[in-house]
Amino acid sequence: MSKKNISENKNFSGQILLYGRHPVLAAINNPKRKINKIFCCKENAEEIKTILTKNKRNIALSIIDRKELDKMLPRDAVHQGFALQCQELEDYTLDEICRLAEEQQNCHVLILDQVTDPQNIGAIIRSCVAFDTLALILQDKNSPTETGAMAKASAGMIEQLPVCRATNLSRAIKTLKDAGFWVIGMDGYATTYIADINKSGKIAVVMGSEGKGMRRLVEENCDQTVKLPISEKVESLNVSTAAAITLYEINKR
Amino acid sequence: MSKKNISENKNFSGQILLYGRHPVLAAINNPKRKINKIFCCKENAEEIKTILTKNKRNIALSIIDRKELDKMLPRDAVHQGFALQCQELEDYTLDEICRLAEEQQNCHVLILDQVTDPQNIGAIIRSCVAFDTLALILQDKNSPTETGAMAKASAGMIEQLPVCRATNLSRAIKTLKDAGFWVIGMDGYATTYIADINKSGKIAVVMGSEGKGMRRLVEENCDQTVKLPISEKVESLNVSTAAAITLYEINKR
Repeated sequence: MSKKNISENKNFSGQILLYGRHPVLAAINNPKRKINKIFCCKENAEEIKTILTKNKRNIALSIIDRKELDKMLPRDAVHQGFALQCQELEDYTLDEICRLAEEQQNCHVLILDQVTDPQNIGAIIRSCVAFDTLALILQDKNSPTETGAMAKASAGMIEQLPVCRATNLSRAIKTLKDAGFWVIGMDGYATTYIADINKSGKIAVVMGSEGKGMRRLVEENCDQTVKLPISEKVESLNVSTAAAITLYEINKR
Repeated sequence: MSKKNISENKNFSGQILLYGRHPVLAAINNPKRKINKIFCCKENAEEIKTILTKNKRNIALSIIDRKELDKMLPRDAVHQGFALQCQELEDYTLDEICRLAEEQQNCHVLILDQVTDPQNIGAIIRSCVAFDTLALILQDKNSPTETGAMAKASAGMIEQLPVCRATNLSRAIKTLKDAGFWVIGMDGYATTYIADINKSGKIAVVMGSEGKGMRRLVEENCDQTVKLPISEKVESLNVSTAAAITLYEINKR
């Protein structure tokens, strides 16, 4: 479990608060998620009890007022009367990701370099699950730990996706190459479109932050750089939009 | 100009506040945008003056403190030291959109049914411009008017895209059909993938809200329904993500 503290709603040691219907129900449905306590408004209690029973989970459930929930959570958090206090999910190691890939002939992973906004990362996680991405690889330092906002933006899909935090992305890329991955970097200045590459085998896609792109050393480690066909009128796409289109295209095969 | 009042930051009659570097600079660069006053922090004044001179625009510029800007704008607005007070952009009529389409052999428009979140609409506007969408058609009643948050989410691209607000979407779809458009509705239950349709000619894409989808009457007016290939693990994509992938795919031709 990550020890970093960029998270805005980690308010007791190593624990986070998830909120919203989808994230809370998805967490209860995930046997790997260690949950301490569930909070909900009266009208949601039956739904939660049913899912607890279905999953044979015995977790304390506290029925509280909407206003108390408002106070517990970051302001403007759309909680829909659902919240829970839990441990962060265990990260995967890069070796574990490589072992998952061994079992597959065609698969892809996504590597994010310098993407720091938890909501963008949450939205990207949702797209990863939608397009069968094997794992998401983040840089250990400059990326946020799990937060309620991230889980909310992922619509609960954070429970489904293996996430690995690598200390050194260039080294991680080399490890993936040794495991048979072809590494493509997304770069607006590339000359090849992503739709035109050979999509068979194992692919690792690297994306940098909006505006800045990948760092030079990370880009130098890519086998190939590719771009999306966007109008000259726009400087760039939002990083989560670009990721969604890229994963859609890679997953088409 | 629309007279509705869903906008959260329209704080004087018919005027809105835009904020953030991209939205403010894009508005100054747009001769159709009627601007009353520009506000900026000291460090941004030179950049704004240069763009005003380049565009031969004479607009009052007020240099103010970052904290004063914070107070003027919705809380948590990321203004980067840029704001301006302006009129909403003029909407296009459906006839004007049809006339724009007459000049093109291949083109596409996007119709949103019941999409209400200003940030989703802003993000969709950015994707529309990125993928050469001719126009965005919204329902007059249930969709928000222009707001600072929408312009910000569009990264200023709101200045580039013709937007039409139709009173009755079913009637608008019929008008587009008469103008030679083939109307496809996005529907998770469709049997055809969007990548597999004939993409030549004029295409109108209809998308409903996340979860609820299009209304029945709107869907019945479509020539064809299509879907995106997403994993069974996810219920749906975020509407702005789904729109981006759809427009990318339509624009590939």
